[in-house]
Amino acid sequence: MADIDVPKILQGYDLDNITIATVCSHTSLQIFHGARKEGFKTLGITVGENRAKYMDAFPRAKPDEIIQLESYDQILGMTEELRERNTIVVPHGSLVEYLTPAKFVQMEVPTFGNRAVLAWESDRAKQREWLESAGLVMPREIKDPKTIDEPVLVKYSGARGGRGFFIARNYRDFKANIEMGKQYTIQEYILGTRYYLHYFYTPLQQHAYNLSKGSLEMLSMDRRDESNIDEMYKLGSQEELKEQNLFPSFVVTGNVPVVIRESLLPKVIDMGAQVVERSIELFGGMIGSFCLETVVTDKLEFRTFEISARIVAGTNPFITGSPYADFIYDDMSSGRRIAMEIKMAREMDRLNEVLS
Amino acid sequence: MADIDVPKILQGYDLDNITIATVCSHTSLQIFHGARKEGFKTLGITVGENRAKYMDAFPRAKPDEIIQLESYDQILGMTEELRERNTIVVPHGSLVEYLTPAKFVQMEVPTFGNRAVLAWESDRAKQREWLESAGLVMPREIKDPKTIDEPVLVKYSGARGGRGFFIARNYRDFKANIEMGKQYTIQEYILGTRYYLHYFYTPLQQHAYNLSKGSLEMLSMDRRDESNIDEMYKLGSQEELKEQNLFPSFVVTGNVPVVIRESLLPKVIDMGAQVVERSIELFGGMIGSFCLETVVTDKLEFRTFEISARIVAGTNPFITGSPYADFIYDDMSSGRRIAMEIKMAREMDRLNEVLS
Amino acid sequence: MADIDVPKILQGYDLDNITIATVCSHTSLQIFHGARKEGFKTLGITVGENRAKYMDAFPRAKPDEIIQLESYDQILGMTEELRERNTIVVPHGSLVEYLTPAKFVQMEVPTFGNRAVLAWESDRAKQREWLESAGLVMPREIKDPKTIDEPVLVKYSGARGGRGFFIARNYRDFKANIEMGKQYTIQEYILGTRYYLHYFYTPLQQHAYNLSKGSLEMLSMDRRDESNIDEMYKLGSQEELKEQNLFPSFVVTGNVPVVIRESLLPKVIDMGAQVVERSIELFGGMIGSFCLETVVTDKLEFRTFEISARIVAGTNPFITGSPYADFIYDDMSSGRRIAMEIKMAREMDRLNEVLS
Repeated sequence: MADIDVPKILQGYDLDNITIATVCSHTSLQIFHGARKEGFKTLGITVGENRAKYMDAFPRAKPDEIIQLESYDQILGMTEELRERNTIVVPHGSLVEYLTPAKFVQMEVPTFGNRAVLAWESDRAKQREWLESAGLVMPREIKDPKTIDEPVLVKYSGARGGRGFFIARNYRDFKANIEMGKQYTIQEYILGTRYYLHYFYTPLQQHAYNLSKGSLEMLSMDRRDESNIDEMYKLGSQEELKEQNLFPSFVVTGNVPVVIRESLLPKVIDMGAQVVERSIELFGGMIGSFCLETVVTDKLEFRTFEISARIVAGTNPFITGSPYADFIYDDMSSGRRIAMEIKMAREMDRLNEVLS
Repeated sequence: MADIDVPKILQGYDLDNITIATVCSHTSLQIFHGARKEGFKTLGITVGENRAKYMDAFPRAKPDEIIQLESYDQILGMTEELRERNTIVVPHGSLVEYLTPAKFVQMEVPTFGNRAVLAWESDRAKQREWLESAGLVMPREIKDPKTIDEPVLVKYSGARGGRGFFIARNYRDFKANIEMGKQYTIQEYILGTRYYLHYFYTPLQQHAYNLSKGSLEMLSMDRRDESNIDEMYKLGSQEELKEQNLFPSFVVTGNVPVVIRESLLPKVIDMGAQVVERSIELFGGMIGSFCLETVVTDKLEFRTFEISARIVAGTNPFITGSPYADFIYDDMSSGRRIAMEIKMAREMDRLNEVLS
Repeated sequence: MADIDVPKILQGYDLDNITIATVCSHTSLQIFHGARKEGFKTLGITVGENRAKYMDAFPRAKPDEIIQLESYDQILGMTEELRERNTIVVPHGSLVEYLTPAKFVQMEVPTFGNRAVLAWESDRAKQREWLESAGLVMPREIKDPKTIDEPVLVKYSGARGGRGFFIARNYRDFKANIEMGKQYTIQEYILGTRYYLHYFYTPLQQHAYNLSKGSLEMLSMDRRDESNIDEMYKLGSQEELKEQNLFPSFVVTGNVPVVIRESLLPKVIDMGAQVVERSIELFGGMIGSFCLETVVTDKLEFRTFEISARIVAGTNPFITGSPYADFIYDDMSSGRRIAMEIKMAREMDRLNEVLS
């Protein structure tokens, strides 16, 4: 676990009056909706005037209270108040990004999940080490752009949200597109169909796909919409479009529900299981929701691009279940599954195993 | 409201025996299914032999009775009979199209919604005035084809259902494709990912995103399938296909469920709210279901193409809820939401506010 | 019906203790989940170590027992044991493929559905005769590749799962791509949007779209993901990619839920009805789940590529219903519908009509 003394903080908590809190964005509707279904109080954090007003449109998902700050950094200054409210923060990708990982791991409020994962997730080399040692196959990295002889993805370091990378088919493409002065990585471009796999690991019980400790569930799968690449083909070939200064971009704008063919599920489950087992060895275990971003080739092989070690926005299509969650629970979203885990841990007096 | 004296007609109604009626097409399964769930009698109107027989396959959505006419115009000749049955017509896009807007606004049967909206919706210039004065950004219109220097959409006036428009990247493209003698409009082609946003405005209560009167809900989102453009890329480049006389077309054939990233929801809700507020100022308010057809660019900006001021076929994927409706209600489709509104208005003795 | 003496076998069955069995793959999660919901015992068959372990992740869908064999052929050697367990096998595409149709039709255990369908389904010419005589329009077959003057699909005989076919736009394309020595068929390539239509035919009751005997339901629709063709356009034109040895492939990897525009439903229902009526005339009737694989052109016409005469993987997105099943039942998947049919047949003492 990370350095926050969670057991000590919890000693001061009224565990019958836990408040579940997160930043109003990303997956917050689902997190609050699920928390309410499990009987928790809810608190939303937002920055700027009216950024959370949209939640009024969704009464069952609107938190009991919304605190408006001037900056996300101010969260760090209100940790005492949050502890007084018996708060458990459920982190999603935007919360970690807005606070920055460095500050997030220092926030002195119990959070759902194991914050030790960030050291392995935020560092590209360590992430690769973790996933490859768990048996996952990731796209090859290419060091020398001159050797590019097949489609590659060129990513600028620190690229967020999908901008800042391009596909190059050869060195000529690379030179034509690269912006000088920026740091980049090059990896093979994997052609296939994309599946974002949403798992949930619980250390508390062995009721599903049992691991050395606890068990693994698979709750849902999605595919992302990306602007403008998804619909760019309608305008003609990329060469012609480049003449008109239209370049493909990969900004995530939404999600659609998908299922994968059942014959690929053994591999899907095994990949999730190996990643969790490896995480237990490396840093005590990645707890709760996580997502493997994968592509399936036409040889039915998986290539994993990335792991997100918390709830991802791709779970947003699945508020009352999914074709996978329905095989485990009634009416279960990932947001609700998190609240259910906190509730179960409290009942078992094992909150220390799911918080950090 | 429009010119039909609805209060007077309702005085003659047995409000405990309302029949909800619509034309058997478009969203009628959902409308009848929802009406039945809310306890209403249902009546389907169809033209031609056996055009409504398919509804037998869906027992819970099949109306109690189906009246077969020889033409849709005959609806206008049976308004007395419809009033005797305490009928409220729920209009969808096909009903308005088959009757024609001019005849629809004159039909002397109460309809759900405000028929005054048609004057602003059916006229391209007034629709643009309405939406732009509400703060929405629409694609620019281009007057002179010679000035085309970026992708544009060329639409033939009166084009229906997706045929009758093409994409041109420059003036040469335009000249090569334009059919002489036809009236057309040219607008910038917005590249991005498409989201059809399905809202519901109720003047009856302030329980969701509250407006100056009533409140706004967002019930679902979809993306349309379009034949043949969706899959045309599989055959090769558009230039080669044109040599073989294969041109892209945009005929809507179906829909898929989508969600948008949560950080775009503030804008989504605000756009719907501004459109409704403006409609209240302009013509007394657009009541009930409506849809904004939008594209999200890779700068995460919305461009709105069009408004449909009633229930749209894109709501058909969501019969027992959606990832948005589930945050407001159990088991709610747009068709059921309409029936629920009629029921609520009747209970509040405020039917005049939701009918015209 | 086929040659297995089902009435005789059933005489020896304890009908209150039926076990529903299938191979662990394809749609087995859904089949077991539905069988359990209907109160049946469940038995999974798998080959190889740990191929069914993934089912642990889905407790409600995991069969009561899993038998591990060394090869699928061994199923034929355990038919006596299966009959002792009062087993009814629910066949899916993978089960039939693994056993091979020839062995499947000889398996001496009652199966759900009418095994006589295989003679008409597995033979391309007979399948075409069946569907075309039922009024369906299939893609034209082209005998002489020299006459190719529009896009065509070239399929190698015995191609499975999507590999082994390519699109050719003319004879030059054909010659450039064809692998000598392989048998192939050529059919027109239909450009449009794809809809896989999932029906259910019950001979037991006339409660839905009634046929000469029994009735037809439509339970759901999907579209398949295909690797690598779905995302190939992101890399550029097919010509450039071929220079880099990248060829389009059509391997099915998953499914997304879709709905079709309601004005196409009369044709959808009619096609299913005609296919069933013709099947009754030809071989006693195709019972239970079946799927028509179709494309809708931009003239809103259907072209049917293929029929699958049993439950298809495209039903996997719909575990607790679909926008179509919801108009007939609560909480119904195709897997559950099959179990429900077996249960209903047992109650009516008409199992012989749904098994072979």
